[in-house]
Amino acid sequence: MATGTYVVGIDVGGQTTKLGVVDARGTVLAQTVIRTDNHSTVEPYIEEVAEAVNKIIADAKAEGEIRGVGVGAPNGNYYTGNIESAPNLPWAHSTVEFAKLLSEALNGLPVALTNDANAAAVGEMTYGAARGMKNFIMITLGTGVGSGIVINGEVVYGHDGFAGELGHTAAVRNNGRVCNCGKTGCLETYCSATGVARTAREWLELSDEPSVLRSLDTIASKDVYDAAKDGDKLALKIFEFTGKILGRSFADFIAFSSPEAIVLFGGLARAKEFLLEPIENAMNENVLPLWKNKVKIVFSQLKESDAAILGASALAWEL
Amino acid sequence: MATGTYVVGIDVGGQTTKLGVVDARGTVLAQTVIRTDNHSTVEPYIEEVAEAVNKIIADAKAEGEIRGVGVGAPNGNYYTGNIESAPNLPWAHSTVEFAKLLSEALNGLPVALTNDANAAAVGEMTYGAARGMKNFIMITLGTGVGSGIVINGEVVYGHDGFAGELGHTAAVRNNGRVCNCGKTGCLETYCSATGVARTAREWLELSDEPSVLRSLDTIASKDVYDAAKDGDKLALKIFEFTGKILGRSFADFIAFSSPEAIVLFGGLARAKEFLLEPIENAMNENVLPLWKNKVKIVFSQLKESDAAILGASALAWEL
Repeated sequence: MATGTYVVGIDVGGQTTKLGVVDARGTVLAQTVIRTDNHSTVEPYIEEVAEAVNKIIADAKAEGEIRGVGVGAPNGNYYTGNIESAPNLPWAHSTVEFAKLLSEALNGLPVALTNDANAAAVGEMTYGAARGMKNFIMITLGTGVGSGIVINGEVVYGHDGFAGELGHTAAVRNNGRVCNCGKTGCLETYCSATGVARTAREWLELSDEPSVLRSLDTIASKDVYDAAKDGDKLALKIFEFTGKILGRSFADFIAFSSPEAIVLFGGLARAKEFLLEPIENAMNENVLPLWKNKVKIVFSQLKESDAAILGASALAWEL
Repeated sequence: MATGTYVVGIDVGGQTTKLGVVDARGTVLAQTVIRTDNHSTVEPYIEEVAEAVNKIIADAKAEGEIRGVGVGAPNGNYYTGNIESAPNLPWAHSTVEFAKLLSEALNGLPVALTNDANAAAVGEMTYGAARGMKNFIMITLGTGVGSGIVINGEVVYGHDGFAGELGHTAAVRNNGRVCNCGKTGCLETYCSATGVARTAREWLELSDEPSVLRSLDTIASKDVYDAAKDGDKLALKIFEFTGKILGRSFADFIAFSSPEAIVLFGGLARAKEFLLEPIENAMNENVLPLWKNKVKIVFSQLKESDAAILGASALAWEL
């Protein structure tokens, strides 16, 4: 059993890696950021990560008091501690024994690893909106749609460690949008930040409806949000559509694990004012009567700048 | 901690209640059947059940060696031990404290209760095709479509005890068939025994394709099966369609809990020869690449006449 007053959280993103020392209340005592994409092999990257970890431990005056390190990374497998071929990480095009390598570089400090959405779920359960909840589903609405499922207080990893890919369930069964994963109609193609921008471009093409979005050269979800804020009708309809697709899918997720709540996090979740009502309406229209108006939709309570570090760090309390 | 060499399994169906004494290998040592629908209040029914239990315990010469009683019943809630308003049970139109009442009638013998599909999952894990599996999904293809989800060796009950209603996830999102639950497009409306008969009636109406099914006054799934056996092309297409809808939905279920296998049970699962291939094809076409050709479709190995009793009895080993 590991002991120690503090944990380290590491969030591995495509461009940057965020690291922080965290206490049991979720206060980030020291943090730093390094580049993820400076190296094409893993060894020099791990060396830089270890250096950064040692630096923030020193900054936090937490030497000898670290219980362990939690890592959230794309395609991170909790069972093996490996990152299994993540196309967005230049040093992980094949399988990388990340947890093992990092632990060795940190003189044997224990390291736990999972994907970013699962880390977010543990973070929310430890420090955030899901505190005290034993059964909930975390949905991250970012560039893609990620998910972390918690049942009886434990993240669901499944037979192989990769459970919880709800962004790739079918939102649309026929003629759905092409997804990066190779399938069509995935929830992620409609309800991620990219999906919202895609809806905007598609609808501008298909109708003559006036919208401030027409004047833009490129459209990102942030533009759609700003337009909705200004009362742009097309932008508002885009969020209503996005919320409806989410709510319909949530109804099916509920039939699976009967969660107390669905917790939303990520860039797109900032559009709560436009998404909440259509999500709740579609969810309650499509769910079995026994769950109608029973499952809460809640939004992450973690400070956005800290959330990724907190999520990853929370894993380490279980080491 | 309960001890004892044997358990009792009770399967409560709409018309009959099957009871049996079972040993650790899944041998049914003594069994009997009573009517479920002779009473409109629960007390006299419980009395009959208790009598029947005592009789089969005596038949099996297992007095004093019973660890507990497991019950599978529609709308059975594992957490509360209650049957919560089951329209098909004349004495359970409102909530009935089934486990408590039965335990009292059996002089304090512990009683565990869940719904029939969850009981089937535990049965399959204890005695059947899922022995040794920690992560699988049980799908029962009967009058309806039921499901029992096992994660890390435990049935998923969720926040309220009602998790695992996969028969009521959306197989068809628009213009889907009306379901008894009040929704439309539920998996159950297509892939249950009733659903197969419904497909037959619908297709006969919509096309002029010749089929032996045209000569029947009423069509049950068994008729479609017999016709398929005889090479009837329409009947074969109906099973292909049914398997495809199942496989597509299974792909989404896999994204949730990443099971080792999906286990099929129930009357319609007897049509394995016509269902297996279309299920596997549709599942592998619609699943994320990482799970392609990885998740097994297996069929129940429990002797059909014993399966309901075995499933319920298996619950009692955990008491």
